[in-house]
Amino acid sequence: MKRNEILKDRISVREYAADNQKFVIEEFTDSISVFNGIKMADIEGKGEIMAAMAEELGCYLRTKGIEARFVERISSNEILCLKTEIIPLEIVTRNIVAGSMAGRLGIEEGLRPGNTIYDLFYCSPELENPLINDHHAVALGFAGYDELDEMYSVARKVNGILSVLFDRAGIALVDFRLCFGKLPDGRIVAASEITPDTARFWDKETGERLDKDRFRMDMGKIGDSYRSLYQRMKSVLQ
Amino acid sequence: MKRNEILKDRISVREYAADNQKFVIEEFTDSISVFNGIKMADIEGKGEIMAAMAEELGCYLRTKGIEARFVERISSNEILCLKTEIIPLEIVTRNIVAGSMAGRLGIEEGLRPGNTIYDLFYCSPELENPLINDHHAVALGFAGYDELDEMYSVARKVNGILSVLFDRAGIALVDFRLCFGKLPDGRIVAASEITPDTARFWDKETGERLDKDRFRMDMGKIGDSYRSLYQRMKSVLQ
Repeated sequence: MKRNEILKDRISVREYAADNQKFVIEEFTDSISVFNGIKMADIEGKGEIMAAMAEELGCYLRTKGIEARFVERISSNEILCLKTEIIPLEIVTRNIVAGSMAGRLGIEEGLRPGNTIYDLFYCSPELENPLINDHHAVALGFAGYDELDEMYSVARKVNGILSVLFDRAGIALVDFRLCFGKLPDGRIVAASEITPDTARFWDKETGERLDKDRFRMDMGKIGDSYRSLYQRMKSVLQ
Repeated sequence: MKRNEILKDRISVREYAADNQKFVIEEFTDSISVFNGIKMADIEGKGEIMAAMAEELGCYLRTKGIEARFVERISSNEILCLKTEIIPLEIVTRNIVAGSMAGRLGIEEGLRPGNTIYDLFYCSPELENPLINDHHAVALGFAGYDELDEMYSVARKVNGILSVLFDRAGIALVDFRLCFGKLPDGRIVAASEITPDTARFWDKETGERLDKDRFRMDMGKIGDSYRSLYQRMKSVLQ
């Protein structure tokens, strides 16, 4: 599949138009960045682990009936995806309180509430990706209430499936981010990959972090942790 | 009714315990403040207009079936209310985009979206009263999902009733804030008054502001505008 122009040029993922209108190619780089690109580094082999994880989880979620843009892995660090009309909304599903939410609400990281938390964000770097609610999304014309319900339903299903999967590997799925896109026929599908860059994973025994927070918090061993996460996940997928 | 200790000491409203456990007294002062008390002033007669407006709207909403803590006006600037267990949540109902929401979402003041917007805030001055969503409120233990639905339902009904009322007076109800409390029997009731300190009112013809934004924006004629708002409202209530 030929790569055409770059559609999105992010530090850790580049998106290319493929040689027809139906597909895009996601290339995972070895770079990692936090704090809006202020802190950056290269982690050898990261792009390959990310693509491998996107592939394994993409295939697994497909067998479980989740509709997503993921089609297949096409090289060590690239995946082929259906081209979708991007909806500028992101749902963060949280099983355990971590990250910005803890400070925002004055609660401790690690709290496991009785309910699952779904945060809706407006993807607008200029506005610093603000937390919004369903009414804002509808007022802004990004989605109808029924379409939002569809997105929450996908997030809920993905959360159920992956929480069970990672639990089998002794890992807690703390939270994960999911973007959504519209196919030409109007169907809404998951339009982002679940990786340690976009989700939090904690070892259930030790609490050790196996995700991007290691970089955010200067904990080191980022490549090792990403590889370990991938291996543990793969061992329970077989 | 004897006033006992002060329960809440805000710049524009003081709450006293009444001489039994069932009631509280709200005293409206002549003071006005914005930006967390950084900007303050005294507006002669403001407390009296506020109490009069709380009385008129409290009685009117009661005839329309809204359950609220308001009982009756007991002096020129005081009202008697049922004592409730305060829920630290506030719903802002918005018919027209104004104030902080405009900047937060990058849209212009004055936009009238096709849907009504309900914002849920966590009343915590230390955390700067953050915007939250239903899942956060449930996780924090402030309310169940069904109780939140009750609160939104009250906000929706109040919005319908008051939008029609003020429209008859040529005034747009732009937005309003509502707090909620629990009665000893568990019923959830509206536990704040609707006044030009807690709601936005715009003249439908001229767009003139008849609320606290006049003070926020240094537009002057605050007392006159509050009085005019009250008179126009009263003329359509009779």
